[in-house]
Amino acid sequence: MADDSARISESAFRDAPPVAVHVTRGDMIESRHRASFAVVDTEGRTVAAAGNIDAPVYPRSAIKPLQALPVIETGAADRFSMTGPELALACASHGGEPEHVATAAGLLRRAGLSVADLACGAHLPYHVPSAHALIRAGEAPSALHNNCSGKHAAMLATVVHMGEKVRGYVAPEHPAQRRITRVYEEMCGVDLSRAPRGIDGCSLPQIGVPLSALARGMARFGAPDGLPPARAAACRRLAEAMVRHPMMIAGTGRFCTTVTEIAAGKAVLKTGAEGMYMAAIPARGMGIAIKVEDGAARAAEVALAVLLARYADFDAGQLAQLDTLMNLPLTNVAGLRIGQLAPNPNF
Amino acid sequence: MADDSARISESAFRDAPPVAVHVTRGDMIESRHRASFAVVDTEGRTVAAAGNIDAPVYPRSAIKPLQALPVIETGAADRFSMTGPELALACASHGGEPEHVATAAGLLRRAGLSVADLACGAHLPYHVPSAHALIRAGEAPSALHNNCSGKHAAMLATVVHMGEKVRGYVAPEHPAQRRITRVYEEMCGVDLSRAPRGIDGCSLPQIGVPLSALARGMARFGAPDGLPPARAAACRRLAEAMVRHPMMIAGTGRFCTTVTEIAAGKAVLKTGAEGMYMAAIPARGMGIAIKVEDGAARAAEVALAVLLARYADFDAGQLAQLDTLMNLPLTNVAGLRIGQLAPNPNF
Repeated sequence: MADDSARISESAFRDAPPVAVHVTRGDMIESRHRASFAVVDTEGRTVAAAGNIDAPVYPRSAIKPLQALPVIETGAADRFSMTGPELALACASHGGEPEHVATAAGLLRRAGLSVADLACGAHLPYHVPSAHALIRAGEAPSALHNNCSGKHAAMLATVVHMGEKVRGYVAPEHPAQRRITRVYEEMCGVDLSRAPRGIDGCSLPQIGVPLSALARGMARFGAPDGLPPARAAACRRLAEAMVRHPMMIAGTGRFCTTVTEIAAGKAVLKTGAEGMYMAAIPARGMGIAIKVEDGAARAAEVALAVLLARYADFDAGQLAQLDTLMNLPLTNVAGLRIGQLAPNPNF
Repeated sequence: MADDSARISESAFRDAPPVAVHVTRGDMIESRHRASFAVVDTEGRTVAAAGNIDAPVYPRSAIKPLQALPVIETGAADRFSMTGPELALACASHGGEPEHVATAAGLLRRAGLSVADLACGAHLPYHVPSAHALIRAGEAPSALHNNCSGKHAAMLATVVHMGEKVRGYVAPEHPAQRRITRVYEEMCGVDLSRAPRGIDGCSLPQIGVPLSALARGMARFGAPDGLPPARAAACRRLAEAMVRHPMMIAGTGRFCTTVTEIAAGKAVLKTGAEGMYMAAIPARGMGIAIKVEDGAARAAEVALAVLLARYADFDAGQLAQLDTLMNLPLTNVAGLRIGQLAPNPNF
């Protein structure tokens, strides 16, 4: 990795994406988040866009649904009798709640592996009560609590099924990673041989892909009729697992889980670190990719809600539920209402 | 509070401040933070500036040094024999470490009050080991763990000393808050009678002040020779407390504490929520105010380091220490170096 490339020179006044989200406090806007987004159909036609949709961005965990396709396509999911919750967890940034940990552990065990084989590293569960329970018990978190453990377990199951080396499965040159890069290229319709590369929070490779191409990949994931039959079947099986098991793609109180429940099949969505969100609107054959310039998750959530409200054909009841997430009251620790997280009305 | 003012309309393409900070990962910049800043002298002359320095911003906790002046000016600090650590804690967003909690509790006790009189609300200590210790002990955090408890304790000591009502001390119309607003107006050289208002995280009033005026206020705080003698003495006493007790203004491993230690008197600095930083450079009679557009603390820290490196006359050793905070290696949970937080070279 070219860490010395850190001092990349660019104008301080590069084109700014539009202000998508306002953080208000009392009488005024306190902070502003700028975001680029692309809404694209399965043929790659732009339905709507803002900001820079041609420059590469790291999709981070928002691309997990595409990253998980090989576990089905290689036959590993059938070989290890992967359940719907396990497939959803393969696409998850989960909260490290007991059911997430148990589900990841179960798949690893059936693949003949253990937590020691996970290369994702350990962190405290995102789910606060689960984190506090570990702390109270005096236990350190394990790699199973890592929000990516379901993805890693599924990837390892694929590696075992294919007879590939388990050790080093996160390296860019490992067959598992080359397979995933090919899936990205096919789904997004781009050549990634010269794309910028980095290392993800869980040590897997990350590849820079333009927002427009990511949105197209999600459009095809949600509406895969035009794809080869095996790929189309894998997309349908994964999307169905994500829709049927919203608790497994994130967790209690999390945006992905709540909005998946509200959407009731009208959208398949996945968050990613540093202000990413990607979604598919299956019935309309549309895909969405959002990158908040500054990396803020709070803004990516609001921006996604705005785009789903516009394009996902939600009914009045669904829109009302979505609105409570899109125009989010902010309170301080003393419980006073102090402001609001809300879309810029002109976004 | 006009919470319905939340839907404030403004162009999505309002002038963007320059990109101040890059978050890099591998081969490319992953996220970008835009910031406005003002470096101003005691007379209000702009030394350097970028972005919008005339629009009001909420200074949040970055203004605590000015907010604390009345505790000295009213005589409350002398009446209750406030120590240097207590004065520093009055200007702090502390980590809720045992010494912070004990210091705030001690001052409250001498003022004849208790934790029940604090209106700041409770939250877990910012300092992670202290938070985990509470969780392990099965104890809920109290208002003393609130990062603002030192400020509230000092404010309450002032109220007791002045014979004002303790209950309701956080209300904008309480004499304690009117007194503080007058201090802001005098120090910053602005009329705040029509300024936007909001409620802070700790329930105290927040007032919108232009960055340029905030920077002037800090310039005068650090170099108070031109102020009335009592005000000048109060500024010197508070600034000295902050410089001598860096652990009390933030805590273990925190940016304010570390940079105050590095600066060794060449700068007095204070962070605020939503991307604020303010500082004084006493020897040069300069003040700095920074607002990161999106509210990110990580970017405000880097931007402040850049400005201190430019204006605070640090020697080579100090600059080398500062550089490790300004060009910050980022590692993932597995311990791999994945990128860097760094100033935009063109900022």
